[in-house]
Amino acid sequence: MLYPTRGQIEAAAHRIAFGIHRTPVLQSAFFDNRFESEFFFKCENFQKAGSFKSRGAINAVFSLDEPEVLKGVATHSSGNHAQALARAAALRKIPAYIVMPENAPRVKIDAVKGYGGVITFCKPNLEARVSTLKRVIAETNAVEIHSYDNLQVIGGQATVAMELLEEQPALDIILCPVGGGGLLSGTVLSAHYFSPATRVIACEPAGADDAFRSFKSGKFVPSVHPRTIADGLLTSLGELTFPIIREFADDIVTVEEKSIAEVMRLIFERMKIVVEPSSAVPLAAILEGKIGVKGKRTGIILSGGNVDLNHLPWQ
Amino acid sequence: MLYPTRGQIEAAAHRIAFGIHRTPVLQSAFFDNRFESEFFFKCENFQKAGSFKSRGAINAVFSLDEPEVLKGVATHSSGNHAQALARAAALRKIPAYIVMPENAPRVKIDAVKGYGGVITFCKPNLEARVSTLKRVIAETNAVEIHSYDNLQVIGGQATVAMELLEEQPALDIILCPVGGGGLLSGTVLSAHYFSPATRVIACEPAGADDAFRSFKSGKFVPSVHPRTIADGLLTSLGELTFPIIREFADDIVTVEEKSIAEVMRLIFERMKIVVEPSSAVPLAAILEGKIGVKGKRTGIILSGGNVDLNHLPWQ
Repeated sequence: MLYPTRGQIEAAAHRIAFGIHRTPVLQSAFFDNRFESEFFFKCENFQKAGSFKSRGAINAVFSLDEPEVLKGVATHSSGNHAQALARAAALRKIPAYIVMPENAPRVKIDAVKGYGGVITFCKPNLEARVSTLKRVIAETNAVEIHSYDNLQVIGGQATVAMELLEEQPALDIILCPVGGGGLLSGTVLSAHYFSPATRVIACEPAGADDAFRSFKSGKFVPSVHPRTIADGLLTSLGELTFPIIREFADDIVTVEEKSIAEVMRLIFERMKIVVEPSSAVPLAAILEGKIGVKGKRTGIILSGGNVDLNHLPWQ
Repeated sequence: MLYPTRGQIEAAAHRIAFGIHRTPVLQSAFFDNRFESEFFFKCENFQKAGSFKSRGAINAVFSLDEPEVLKGVATHSSGNHAQALARAAALRKIPAYIVMPENAPRVKIDAVKGYGGVITFCKPNLEARVSTLKRVIAETNAVEIHSYDNLQVIGGQATVAMELLEEQPALDIILCPVGGGGLLSGTVLSAHYFSPATRVIACEPAGADDAFRSFKSGKFVPSVHPRTIADGLLTSLGELTFPIIREFADDIVTVEEKSIAEVMRLIFERMKIVVEPSSAVPLAAILEGKIGVKGKRTGIILSGGNVDLNHLPWQ
């Protein structure tokens, strides 16, 4: 099993510091009272390019050596990694080649273009994405930066929990959403290195429960026809992320769509911050009574804030 | 002309500290680049009960002596002052009698009830509100706490700009929305006392431009049939607030509804925070080119975050 060392995560924190926000840790009297816990929300919705993905993307891009990096970097992504990688490449003044499905939301396409990313559109399925990316890389010699199955990406995402634990060292538990598992892998590793007594529980939509089923069975289960409003959590675990999660995560629980929408609205209303559906998944698990947090010091990772304001889930 | 002294504002800051948030001052690379200014956003949308009104309400309630305060406090309000006063009274363990129009939004009624406020409904016009409040006060002997035309309320609201100037002492300009003028009065006084070189410009919806017309003519002009989505800015200036604003404000400008909605959406999208329409009015004035901020250090007061998420103005 390959995974970043403690020293590599600390190095990532130094490497990316120039290009990310050290995001705030917010509290909420409302949620504390409601669930009888003491919550600490790590606000990656305030991160550059709107999500934690900026950390891994910058760490990966700035870990590459010349001359290979000068050909640029490439990935396929319809979401936050696309923006984050385009921005990271712009910071290093190299090209970013982004393969996006032709039905990607206008706002995400514009964001990638805004950072100077070169977009190649493809049919909206995984096969087309993979084959198109292969062709783009053959043409450009760019370096592929996978959105989660990449050690530098995982090391970058680990700085989220590292910062949270620096600010709040004695957390009983950290809750984290899981899609491809890059953020979760980083989170379990940082807890392991920097606060071994802190339990990490991953939270996943029931409509995209491949990580849950993989974790419970111990065997990789792919994500097939996932259905959830948490559009950041649709993907399967990776060859790197699954073993890390199997080894270090304490548990994975699933939540219903209704709870995700309800909690997302409560976060807007009560905390006055904008989060994307994926960010609401951990609190949704508490709302459903899936995780006991009473009397505990509970860290919650709010993973991002890139949401389509024309289609909020309560409307 | 009556207005709080420097010492009274400093005393207010001490008096209310136990019951308010010292709200953060946020920056935004997006708005800095867009308008070539350096912005400092004072985030009263994160304030207790969702707006700056908590400051004035607590200062007023905790400035009262026993035994008179034990009868409770009373006001008429359909908005943020209602919640803020109900909460302030709960903190002092006295009754709050709130007169609200019968068509007040459910969410505001629930918020007042949530803080233990005793609501009396009336017809939705100013006369009915005033006469109903008079009757409630006659029945209860409660002390009226006007939502802005009250020296303790003004002194409390002054702590917003006081905190902003403590954190960012050399601001060239502070922009502030104006409705009844409580926040603006406090803001111009704090600039006067703590940073005399800082200019204060008030921003008002063109559809509710009574403060603009009062300021420009030097004569009180009432707010008649105001029409704006900035529901915190509908009211007329007061007998206390108008003279303070006439004396100390540097200018007042007006903005169109379209700009308010556009900027409110940009704040959600780019800053990832939830604000109410009133909070968007100052940046809307910059968007319209009404205020020159290029190269300046510009303070912006985001007054509150209590917005109906079912009726966002871009939908």
